[in-house]
Amino acid sequence: MADDETDSYTVESRNRLRRKHERGHYDRETVHAILDAAMLCHVAYAIDGQPYCTPTAFWREGDRLLWHASSASRAIRAQSAGIPVCVTVALMDAIVLARCGFNHSINYRSVMAYGRARAIEGNAAKLAAMDNFIDRFFPGRAATLRPPSPQEIKATTLVEMEIETAAAKVRDLPVHDEEADYAVPAWTALIPLRQVLGAAEECPRQLPGLAAPAWTALYPEGRRLDEAVAEAYRAHYG
Amino acid sequence: MADDETDSYTVESRNRLRRKHERGHYDRETVHAILDAAMLCHVAYAIDGQPYCTPTAFWREGDRLLWHASSASRAIRAQSAGIPVCVTVALMDAIVLARCGFNHSINYRSVMAYGRARAIEGNAAKLAAMDNFIDRFFPGRAATLRPPSPQEIKATTLVEMEIETAAAKVRDLPVHDEEADYAVPAWTALIPLRQVLGAAEECPRQLPGLAAPAWTALYPEGRRLDEAVAEAYRAHYG
Repeated sequence: MADDETDSYTVESRNRLRRKHERGHYDRETVHAILDAAMLCHVAYAIDGQPYCTPTAFWREGDRLLWHASSASRAIRAQSAGIPVCVTVALMDAIVLARCGFNHSINYRSVMAYGRARAIEGNAAKLAAMDNFIDRFFPGRAATLRPPSPQEIKATTLVEMEIETAAAKVRDLPVHDEEADYAVPAWTALIPLRQVLGAAEECPRQLPGLAAPAWTALYPEGRRLDEAVAEAYRAHYG
Repeated sequence: MADDETDSYTVESRNRLRRKHERGHYDRETVHAILDAAMLCHVAYAIDGQPYCTPTAFWREGDRLLWHASSASRAIRAQSAGIPVCVTVALMDAIVLARCGFNHSINYRSVMAYGRARAIEGNAAKLAAMDNFIDRFFPGRAATLRPPSPQEIKATTLVEMEIETAAAKVRDLPVHDEEADYAVPAWTALIPLRQVLGAAEECPRQLPGLAAPAWTALYPEGRRLDEAVAEAYRAHYG
């Protein structure tokens, strides 16, 4: 369980890094910063012994992770029933080439968070979660939309998972080789990677004269998505 | 099991799309094209009922997916023992905003592939796989490197998973709203997303006079990673 007495997640069997300990972080600040820089997570769960890994948009609120799906989804029905899940976020930052295959690597920021999901019940709670799902990425946007219909609310299941424990793993290192290998005539480099925004393509049926809302300043062409969603998170949740 | 009589994966319980059927694809051409445009996958597996979701670099060879880890890794030891795994690839292509929360979406290309992993045994087979792991992304690079030492070969476990079955799911749609909602004064747009390469930062200890190899032409600054790795795949495997 999360240790409320400290600012770190408890280290237990499922989240303890067994290797590359120096890459591991259990403090909430590091874990949350990676989660809040992402729009997409992968949710692992098993049904009748068969594991599944579903990519989905998600967000964090305090020590909970939230995501949604159609109420008809097999995955979301299984998850809502309280089975254990693992939510993983991985952000690739660079390809790192070296002078031997063994030292090739990827720079990344990742989190694996563990818990059990449950469905958010009640219209008011579901509506609040739906608004946060929008506003967490696009602050202030939810109030500008046509509100969810009763049918849409019913058709959507939102789940929340209390983070029981979690671990972040971060690699942020330059090219590194064994000393003897620097004489090997292999070209080596670090190739940065970033996920960036393209220019927004307005809907052709946009109402005339409609101004771009304030939040669009967070999502300019060419900006890194991780920076945009992290700033949006702070703008919405403070 | 994969149906050798056709060019499509067999549709069975674990890979059948229950919703949004129009987004589903079971043909090898579509599935493989998405796999070959990715460097990172997420592997889901369960140990003692606890699911895990591990992000890792991977590649495809025919109808097998391959990845690696330290031989000391708990995950890779469990996977090598033949437990069922699900390998997921997700490429985000756009954020799609609409006039109600319900119609917000993400354009993406994803694959969920199912099978059982097993360790690649024998030095020759391991060395061949290690070279392909490098050359599949950086064609011709493996031969320029210091070869793996016996210790490195021992310390590395490569696993392969025959794709028993798989499904691709693709959304590639513009902003769409209910007809009545086009009168809602909410700003809407499709915001493209792409993962791009930065300028290669050569190792400061690069040997003087070492020319950039031919494969670097596939990885110029600003290019989409998915296009680069797909082209590299074709260059290596033909």
